[in-house]
Amino acid sequence: MEKDFYKKYWHTTSHILAQAVKRLFPEVKLGTGPAIENGFYYDFYREKPFTPEDLKAIEKEMKKIIKENLKIERIEETKEKAKEILKEEPFKLEILEEIPDEKVSFYKQGEFIDLCEGPHLNSTGEVKHFKLLSVASSYWRGDENRESMQRIYGISYPEKEELENYLKFIEEAKERDHRVLGPALDLFSIHPEFGSGLIYWHPKGSIIRKIIEDFWKEVHLKNGYEIVYTPHIADVSLWEKSGHLSFYKEYMFPQMEVDNERKFQLKPMNCPFHILIYKSKLRSYRDLPIRWAELGTVYRYEKQGVLHGLLRVRGFTQDDAHIFCTPSQIEDEIMKIIELVSFFLGSFGFKDYKVFLSTRPENFVGTPENWEKATNALENALKKKNMDYEIDPGEGVFYGPKIDIKIKDCLGREWQCSTIQVDFNIPEKFEIKYIDRDGNFKTPILIHRAILGSLERFFGILIEHYKGNFPLWLAPEQIRILPIAERHNEFSEKIKSALSEFRTGIDLRNEKINRKIRDAESEKVPYMIIIGDREVESNKLALRQHSKGMIGNFSLEEIKNLLKEKIEKKEIEV
Amino acid sequence: MEKDFYKKYWHTTSHILAQAVKRLFPEVKLGTGPAIENGFYYDFYREKPFTPEDLKAIEKEMKKIIKENLKIERIEETKEKAKEILKEEPFKLEILEEIPDEKVSFYKQGEFIDLCEGPHLNSTGEVKHFKLLSVASSYWRGDENRESMQRIYGISYPEKEELENYLKFIEEAKERDHRVLGPALDLFSIHPEFGSGLIYWHPKGSIIRKIIEDFWKEVHLKNGYEIVYTPHIADVSLWEKSGHLSFYKEYMFPQMEVDNERKFQLKPMNCPFHILIYKSKLRSYRDLPIRWAELGTVYRYEKQGVLHGLLRVRGFTQDDAHIFCTPSQIEDEIMKIIELVSFFLGSFGFKDYKVFLSTRPENFVGTPENWEKATNALENALKKKNMDYEIDPGEGVFYGPKIDIKIKDCLGREWQCSTIQVDFNIPEKFEIKYIDRDGNFKTPILIHRAILGSLERFFGILIEHYKGNFPLWLAPEQIRILPIAERHNEFSEKIKSALSEFRTGIDLRNEKINRKIRDAESEKVPYMIIIGDREVESNKLALRQHSKGMIGNFSLEEIKNLLKEKIEKKEIEV
Repeated sequence: MEKDFYKKYWHTTSHILAQAVKRLFPEVKLGTGPAIENGFYYDFYREKPFTPEDLKAIEKEMKKIIKENLKIERIEETKEKAKEILKEEPFKLEILEEIPDEKVSFYKQGEFIDLCEGPHLNSTGEVKHFKLLSVASSYWRGDENRESMQRIYGISYPEKEELENYLKFIEEAKERDHRVLGPALDLFSIHPEFGSGLIYWHPKGSIIRKIIEDFWKEVHLKNGYEIVYTPHIADVSLWEKSGHLSFYKEYMFPQMEVDNERKFQLKPMNCPFHILIYKSKLRSYRDLPIRWAELGTVYRYEKQGVLHGLLRVRGFTQDDAHIFCTPSQIEDEIMKIIELVSFFLGSFGFKDYKVFLSTRPENFVGTPENWEKATNALENALKKKNMDYEIDPGEGVFYGPKIDIKIKDCLGREWQCSTIQVDFNIPEKFEIKYIDRDGNFKTPILIHRAILGSLERFFGILIEHYKGNFPLWLAPEQIRILPIAERHNEFSEKIKSALSEFRTGIDLRNEKINRKIRDAESEKVPYMIIIGDREVESNKLALRQHSKGMIGNFSLEEIKNLLKEKIEKKEIEV
Repeated sequence: MEKDFYKKYWHTTSHILAQAVKRLFPEVKLGTGPAIENGFYYDFYREKPFTPEDLKAIEKEMKKIIKENLKIERIEETKEKAKEILKEEPFKLEILEEIPDEKVSFYKQGEFIDLCEGPHLNSTGEVKHFKLLSVASSYWRGDENRESMQRIYGISYPEKEELENYLKFIEEAKERDHRVLGPALDLFSIHPEFGSGLIYWHPKGSIIRKIIEDFWKEVHLKNGYEIVYTPHIADVSLWEKSGHLSFYKEYMFPQMEVDNERKFQLKPMNCPFHILIYKSKLRSYRDLPIRWAELGTVYRYEKQGVLHGLLRVRGFTQDDAHIFCTPSQIEDEIMKIIELVSFFLGSFGFKDYKVFLSTRPENFVGTPENWEKATNALENALKKKNMDYEIDPGEGVFYGPKIDIKIKDCLGREWQCSTIQVDFNIPEKFEIKYIDRDGNFKTPILIHRAILGSLERFFGILIEHYKGNFPLWLAPEQIRILPIAERHNEFSEKIKSALSEFRTGIDLRNEKINRKIRDAESEKVPYMIIIGDREVESNKLALRQHSKGMIGNFSLEEIKNLLKEKIEKKEIEV
C-alpha cells in the first residue's frame, strides 16, 4: 500500500536526519523521530537552538549519508544489551524502560543505531529527494514540565517532481493561511492576552457569519426543523446527570462556585438543554420526528498548545441539531440529513467528500440489537443516497454508531465537518419518553448532527479554500465604486444608491485611481465600477473584476443582473 | 400632590391592618409596614401561617377600626421611653437601636401605637375602601439568615370605583402573566433545578425571537451599523482593566480557575470586547462614527430572590451597540438613536414613552466641561426630536450622562427598555484613540445604547402586552387549516402548501371541528381556515379570526393579500 510505503520512506529519512545531526553535533541527545501524515520529524535535545545555517549543514550531511548508501539492518537485542547501547541517550533509555518485552529491536545504518520498531527501507541510498522544512520547540512527551526539545520537520519523495509539488503545496497553504488572511482582511481577531482560543468577529467577518447563519436557519426551517435557543451555563447537576462530568470532564471549563448555592459550568455541548425542552411536556408518537436546531455556542477547555487560529479554539458555535424519532424513522431521517449535508457543503463549493461509518466499539451502552438496527439504518441510508463510504469497524462512540463526513478543500486537504451520531445513552439517562400508538411509553431514538461542525472552524476552512476571495453571495463588500477624480464623486454616490440592494462600497478618498484599484484588489472586493468622465456622460459603466481586470462596459441594469445571477447561483470563482 | 396623598392613605391603611392583627392575634410581633408603589404591606412574625380565613377576619376587624374612626396622633418620645413602649416588639426595638436621634416619633390610634415617621391621615375613618390582596413570606430585613416574616399586601382607595378598577387591573395583569402564558403557549421554560434565571426558548418562542433578531439586524444594517460577534468569557485581566472587577464585581459570576493558567469569567457586558476590536487597528477620523451592534448574551449573578420569570434573569441577550464618534458627532448620533428607538418600539405597538435625562452625579470621571458638552448634546437631541423629557439631576452613572426611555404597556405599567449612555471612562481606561484631521491622536466619545434592552425581558413584556396574542408578523403559527372531516384532509393539505409563504399549520387529528377550533383559539393562532364540503366545492374559504369568530368567505388570493398586508403593516389587534 502507498500509505505504508511513504511511512517507511519518511521514517528512514528521519533516521538519516538524526544520523546527520549526531555527526555534526555529537552532544545532542535523541528524542523520537516518526513519520507523520506528511513527512517526518525528529526531536532533539540541545541547549542552543538550531540556526538556518545549522539546517543547511544538516541537509548537506544527509545528502552525504544518502550517497554513502548505507545498508539498514534490523538487530534484536536483550534489554540489558540495549541499555548498554543507549547509555548516552537518556530519552531513549526512558522509552526502553517502558517496553515490557524481553527483547527490543534496533535499526542500524553505518555508525548510527536507533531503538526502533521499523520498518525501514533497505539502504539510505533509497531516499532520493528531501527537504528540511522547519524547526519548532516541543516538550518531551508533550509534557510541559519536561525538557524542551527542538523538533526538525522534513519531507522526502522518490521523485523530484513530487517534492516540488509538495513544496508548492506548502507555499500555497501558507498564502492561504487563515491566521494571516483573517486579520489582513479585517475578518476576525484573537486577543490571547485576554484569553486564548476566543474569537472576536470583526464587522466583515460577522457579515459573512450572518449570511451563513441566515442561510442555515432558512434552509433548516424549510426542511422541517424548528429553532431553539438555550443558555450557555447550567448547574453542575445537569452535567452530572448527562454524564459529561464523568466522560468529558477534562474538556470542560472549571466550575463557578457560588456561595451558599450550587455550582455553574459552561456548556461543552447543547444536547442536555434540548432534552430538558423535550421533557417540558408530554410527547406523542404523532409529534415525532421532532427536529430541533440551534446555533449553540459551546466552550471546551482545549490545551493552550493545540489551539490553532479558527481551526482549534476554546469557544465555538456548533450548527447543532437533535432529532427525536421512532426506531422506524431513523433511516428516513438519516437520508434527509445526508441530503442536507450535500446541499450545504455543495453551496460552499465542496463537492468531494469522504464518508466513514463507525460501528460498535468494545465498550458500549444500549443493546447489541439496537446497535445493529441503527447501524443498518445508517448504512442503508448511505446506500440509498449512493454515497461511497468506508467502514471504521469498532470506531463508534460508546453511545452509538455514527457517520463522519470529510470534505476536501482546493488543496486536497481533508477536513471533518459533518457528523451524524445515534445516541442510546442520553435518552436512557434522562428517561425521555413518548406515548406510542399502542398507548405505551417508549424511549425515542436521539440523533445528534452537525453539518458545518463549528462556525469558527468552517470559517477558517472557507478563508483558506477561497484564499480570502469570498464568492459574491458571501463577500462582505460585493462591489465598490471608484471615482477617478473628485468631480466624479457626486455621480458615484448616485450609482452607489442605485446599487443599495447589494453590499456596495465607495472610495471617495483623494487618491489616484490606481491606488484605489490596488486597495480594492488587496481587500479582495469582487467587483469594482470605475467612474470617469466617460461614465458620467454615457450610460455605460466600466466594470472590473477582482484579479481579472476590466471585463467590459455595462449599463447599470446589466451589472445588477450580472450580480444577482451570481449571488443566486452562489457562484464560486476561485 | 396626588402621589403624596396615596402614600399617606396607604400607610395609614397598613397601620389599620397592624392594629387589626394585634387585636386578633396578640402574640404576633410587628415588622414594618410601608406604602409601596401600589398599595401597602405589613410584615408580621407569627409561627403559624395566616390562612384565607384569617385574612377575612382581619379585613372584618379593619372595617371595625375604620368605623371606630379613631383619631391618629403623632407623639414624640425620648429613646428611653420608646424602648419601654416597644418592650414586647423585638423587631421594632432593633430598628429603634439604629435611629441616631435623641427623640423618635410614634403614631397612635386607639390602643395601637407604632414607631413611625409618618405622615398619616387624621383618623382611621378617612380610609374608605380597601382590600387585602395576598400573603407572601419574606426575610426580616431581606436577610435570608434572619427570621421569616409573613407579608400581607393590600390596597385602598377613597372611591369604590377606584378600588374596583385596581382589582380589575390586578386580575387582568394576572391573566397576562408571562410566567403563566409562556409555558401554556409553549414559548419558553425555566428549569431551576438545573440553574435559576436561565431561559430555554422553545420552538414557538424561538421563532418569535428569530423574527425580532432578523428585523433588528436588518434595520441596524440599513442605518449604518455593522454587526459583530464576541465571546462570552474573557480572562479576568480584561475585567480588571475595564474596571468591572471593582465596580461590578457582585453582579459577576464567579471566576473559573484554571490550573497553571489565568482565570476566566463570564461577561456581564459587551463593551470591553468591542473596545478590543476597535483597538485591533489604527482608526482615523474618517472612519468615525463607527457603530457596532451585537446581540450579545451576558450573564449577571442576580440574587435568587429577585429572579422573576423573563423580567429578571441571570442570562440575557442585550441588543447592544457601541458608537465611537468625535465630540462634534454626539448630537447627531443621539438623534439617530432616538429615531431608531421610536421606530423599533413603535413597531411593537409602544407609542407612549417617558424619557429621563440623567445629569452629572457627585462622583464622576471625566472633566466637567466634557460632561456639560455631552449633557447639552443629549438635551439638544431630545429637543430637536420633540421628545418630552424629565431631568433626573445628579442621577447619571459615574462614567457619563444618559437618557433612559420607559414604555407604557396596555395596562399602563411602565417598563424601562432603552438606554443611551455616554461613557468617558472606558475610552480612557483602554486608551482608545483616533487620528484626527490635524494629525493628532484624540480620544473618541463612546456611546453605549440598547433599544429593546434584553431580548428575554422584552419578550416577557410583549407576552403581557399582547396577552399572548402576538401580532401576525410575530405569531409562531400565523394561520391553521382545520378540515372538518377526514375526507377534507387532502384538500386541506393543498391549501396548506399554497400558503407556504406563511407559517401555516394544519390540524389533521381525528377530532370534531369544535375541538379543533377550541384548541387553535387557546393556542392563540391568529387565523383559521375551516375546510368542509362547501369549501372543497367552491372557490371560497371560510376564514376565522382569533377571538373574533368567522369573518367571512374569501378566495385563497384574498386571504393571502389580507395576511400580507397585516404582516407588512405589523398590525396589532389586541
